[in-house]
Amino acid sequence: MTTVSELGTPALVVDGDALEHNLAAMAAALPGPRCRPHVKAHKTTAVAKRQRAHGHVGFTCATPREAIGMAEAGLGDDLLVANEVLDLERLEALAHLEARVTVAVDSEGTIEAATRAGLRECVIDVNVGLPRCGCSPEDAGGLADRARREGLGVRGVMGYEGHVVGLADHAERVRQTAECMEQLARAHDDVGGDLISAGGTGTYDINELATEIQAGSYALMDLAYGELRLPFRRALSVVATVISTNPAGGYAVADCGLKALGMDHGNPAIDGATVWFCSDEHVTFSYDGGAGDGPRLPALGERVAVWPAHIDPTVAYHERMYVADGEKVVEVWPVDLRGW
Amino acid sequence: MTTVSELGTPALVVDGDALEHNLAAMAAALPGPRCRPHVKAHKTTAVAKRQRAHGHVGFTCATPREAIGMAEAGLGDDLLVANEVLDLERLEALAHLEARVTVAVDSEGTIEAATRAGLRECVIDVNVGLPRCGCSPEDAGGLADRARREGLGVRGVMGYEGHVVGLADHAERVRQTAECMEQLARAHDDVGGDLISAGGTGTYDINELATEIQAGSYALMDLAYGELRLPFRRALSVVATVISTNPAGGYAVADCGLKALGMDHGNPAIDGATVWFCSDEHVTFSYDGGAGDGPRLPALGERVAVWPAHIDPTVAYHERMYVADGEKVVEVWPVDLRGW
Repeated sequence: MTTVSELGTPALVVDGDALEHNLAAMAAALPGPRCRPHVKAHKTTAVAKRQRAHGHVGFTCATPREAIGMAEAGLGDDLLVANEVLDLERLEALAHLEARVTVAVDSEGTIEAATRAGLRECVIDVNVGLPRCGCSPEDAGGLADRARREGLGVRGVMGYEGHVVGLADHAERVRQTAECMEQLARAHDDVGGDLISAGGTGTYDINELATEIQAGSYALMDLAYGELRLPFRRALSVVATVISTNPAGGYAVADCGLKALGMDHGNPAIDGATVWFCSDEHVTFSYDGGAGDGPRLPALGERVAVWPAHIDPTVAYHERMYVADGEKVVEVWPVDLRGW
Repeated sequence: MTTVSELGTPALVVDGDALEHNLAAMAAALPGPRCRPHVKAHKTTAVAKRQRAHGHVGFTCATPREAIGMAEAGLGDDLLVANEVLDLERLEALAHLEARVTVAVDSEGTIEAATRAGLRECVIDVNVGLPRCGCSPEDAGGLADRARREGLGVRGVMGYEGHVVGLADHAERVRQTAECMEQLARAHDDVGGDLISAGGTGTYDINELATEIQAGSYALMDLAYGELRLPFRRALSVVATVISTNPAGGYAVADCGLKALGMDHGNPAIDGATVWFCSDEHVTFSYDGGAGDGPRLPALGERVAVWPAHIDPTVAYHERMYVADGEKVVEVWPVDLRGW
């Protein structure tokens, strides 16, 4: 039986209880098809299987490879590639899966690519304020007509309020989500179809329009979402080993750096410590406070849990995640949906 | 024959001419053993083979896996793991390689781990000002004595002026490098040995003490080092496809995001454009200027070169790099030194 302190580091470690709590909490709030878990956050079919065991049959993917991996893992009942894809080879691979695959389209070009590849269903991706993909709400109906003329089934609309999901002020998050969804509703009036797919972990409980929420981060959580007072626990850390200490400087160095952590949201956290900085293979940190003799220095070889600021680009660096029950490693899950 | 515009994206693309220029420029400035190229920047044995063809036989590694991969690729004549490792399993794997492996040690614990694993040679890692690994200069001699008592060969010292290599002001970079190297010289006096290993791409031509420079980024370069007016050309971009455009907003979206880019140094760059932001799979950007009708919008499907701010954590996300001669892809190199 392996224990967490025997793992080669840096190692992604999942707190099995916290994961289970998070999956159960989401399934209670948004049962079955009300949540379409986004696999981009964990890129791991083993996590998706747990989500499915909690009743969610449809999944959201960001890349063709995620959808292909999900189908190969037997999770292809209803896969939404919630992203624009023009790559014909990859679209054809999606079309040949034994899976129900729906792609997002936001232009004549993406509709043409999808039909040429032999895909059968789409949603119209609508821009609801985040400057990223998605057509204008007023163009959605025309694109839906065009898609249908080309022989694509149009299942509805999607529109991601990604600029809103992380707002710290709850009232403001509610207000802006409603504004975004007004635009999506307008587009849906013109498009039709059963699906109104939107939302994320930060708006899962306040988005009143979406028929399904594309939440991903709730399963494992991260520092950014941790600030929103959501009922989800942090379930993923990068366990690192202290490889050097500097008593004069009062700091220690552990082997978890820029190649083990998504850094776009800033530094990770270590409980009770201040993170000084990260470099390619290192995090330098010092413990806070401490009575009398000042803050303690960790011992060489001691393990520390490093909490990533942003989960998605953190997970994408790792080959596997270890599921822990306290100190015991109870499962090893390959991060099998990496790459493109 | 594949062309760059046929590649599935995001794709790491190496400008073969620029790479060759960079390798030749470094080999001219620091021939043979004067440079010990750091493989952490490119994590690719095919690049290391080119560096060797330019006369550099010894290499620097940041992780055991890098060293193992280098040895397996026939590049194990003189590998320095310039990092502290306590993991006995990995150290034993290093000790069993058919390769000359030297590890950095900065404490009794790391010396003990190296000897227990059966490693035969080390350098004393000295802290020269960067708050990371390395012993105090005054402790270096004592650690060297101890290592020798334990049966380790002590080849000399290393000390990385990582807080100085990126200083924009050349005179300041020179001054601080000299200060750092005074400390390393003091340690070397006490330690002895042939090696004084230090430096990086930003100090390769101003570090006057080091017998060998551990430069890595010079081969492929990035935005951060691009600001230092070094004689190395940018040789690595992430090629992306424009998958959505927004004429009203004046922006476009390409498929190169946080999982394809190290973000600790900030946003990447696109020539002639302003990068708005990156999300997991996207970069939103707009072209600058433009006469009369305003800046142009790229066409759907158009390729753009995205220049990473920091190369090391960018490369670590990718499975392969494509070497291009203009539009032609002439080689595909696996990024085979990833992970730990």
